[in-house]
Amino acid sequence: MAEHHTVGAGTLPAPTVFFLSDSTGITAETLGNTLLTQFPGHRLERRTIPFITTAEQARDVVALIDRVAAAGPQPIIFSTTVSQDIRAVLSQSQGQFFDLFDAHIGKLEQTLGSTANGKPGQAHGVGDAVRYQLRMAAVEYAIEHDDGQSLRALERAELILIAPSRCGKTPTTMYLALQHGILAANFPLVEEDFDTMTLPKPLLPFASKCFGLTSQPVRLSQIRQERRPGSNYASLNQCTFELRNAEDMYRTNNIPYVNSASMSVEEISATILQRI
Amino acid sequence: MAEHHTVGAGTLPAPTVFFLSDSTGITAETLGNTLLTQFPGHRLERRTIPFITTAEQARDVVALIDRVAAAGPQPIIFSTTVSQDIRAVLSQSQGQFFDLFDAHIGKLEQTLGSTANGKPGQAHGVGDAVRYQLRMAAVEYAIEHDDGQSLRALERAELILIAPSRCGKTPTTMYLALQHGILAANFPLVEEDFDTMTLPKPLLPFASKCFGLTSQPVRLSQIRQERRPGSNYASLNQCTFELRNAEDMYRTNNIPYVNSASMSVEEISATILQRI
Repeated sequence: MAEHHTVGAGTLPAPTVFFLSDSTGITAETLGNTLLTQFPGHRLERRTIPFITTAEQARDVVALIDRVAAAGPQPIIFSTTVSQDIRAVLSQSQGQFFDLFDAHIGKLEQTLGSTANGKPGQAHGVGDAVRYQLRMAAVEYAIEHDDGQSLRALERAELILIAPSRCGKTPTTMYLALQHGILAANFPLVEEDFDTMTLPKPLLPFASKCFGLTSQPVRLSQIRQERRPGSNYASLNQCTFELRNAEDMYRTNNIPYVNSASMSVEEISATILQRI
Repeated sequence: MAEHHTVGAGTLPAPTVFFLSDSTGITAETLGNTLLTQFPGHRLERRTIPFITTAEQARDVVALIDRVAAAGPQPIIFSTTVSQDIRAVLSQSQGQFFDLFDAHIGKLEQTLGSTANGKPGQAHGVGDAVRYQLRMAAVEYAIEHDDGQSLRALERAELILIAPSRCGKTPTTMYLALQHGILAANFPLVEEDFDTMTLPKPLLPFASKCFGLTSQPVRLSQIRQERRPGSNYASLNQCTFELRNAEDMYRTNNIPYVNSASMSVEEISATILQRI
């Protein structure tokens, strides 16, 4: 059983954090890492061990954790394992065991008036097949419509992200497609677009689907310098010009927009979803 | 404050599930939805309300929840709000309140021997700027190297996914890039590749980075029929031929591979990460 590792930076001793799951481990990683952001001073080593589906595998994992425990600080374990049998094995290790499921299942059974079904692995499986196919189709749509490459079926877009180059259109579009199944295109704003302050012509029929991104000139200039060092494209003057004009264009055309300068794609996406 | 909705299918009464957060809401959605997959019989309406950062916003949310509660079954609330003040407001609604943070923070403080910092919104923010830039660069790399489109800088790839058309290469590559910052290319296997059973020529120097996908012939044929109905490309015969030969090629060249037929991109990705 292999693991994937990442190591954080910090100053205090470095316990190992295990994310254990009978499925992908995504839920354990997500909540576990969210909890750990509350303790930024700690250097931590992280190991995800997914697909623990038999008691024998669970015993191997416990043996591994116990070896790590014997060699250093007490490991921390975030587990979302559903099976009682496997949980019973995993909770026997020398690590500090955080059962992210058990804490809530009983109360949820009471609230919903029914019993948890105990089947693992459904949250990040195919699940709802129709919804899953939508997500996969959205990824293809996003690639085809990245950076204004295709105008085909633009009317099918649920969202068209517009912005000057390097404001974060592409990764945001991919995130919205992959995680939310949103048919999203993205389209660059270039200097010529600012002559008239109207939307680029292919987008005119779809103004109500447009959402703008802007950034901070210094930040944008830094990012563009990485791509084309010393170019006019990357100059602070040019970045200031493009961003000021893009924002004017958004306001003139009633396009909602967000400043992506200090936001992650996850934050930009949540903001867009909240506003459309 | 807007919300995004999704409605599931089922037979029992339909409570509303609120995912509340002072940040993106991604963690609340992830664990909340994972818990809810344990209760598949319930029809649920879902509402995510992210970025609740003031007590006034929290009071508006409580008023909304109370209106929903007055009109139907008791709402269910999954909250990952960090601020004590905002939590105190949110927990006052008529909904059943699941605090996904509070359940674990105390024990985690004990284990790590330090105090939670109480700052919201770090789990899905930019966080580690270097790691974040790697993820964004990986998305661009994945788009440039989708479906064998570019051989430029192929030596930088950490992973090259290979498979016949429509086995899931593209969305898996995007997921690995966006979520894990892995520099991943993908490359199609076509009929001519099976004449010699050697890897496609551009990949020969990078065999150790290759990972194969295969599928079930009937499943692959269904997916291809959607793209080109009635074509030889989509025929069961052709799909059987390509998949059998692809698997032979993987085995001949010692390429690890996985059958993606009934797996989600999340499951395929977790499997790949576990094995490389």
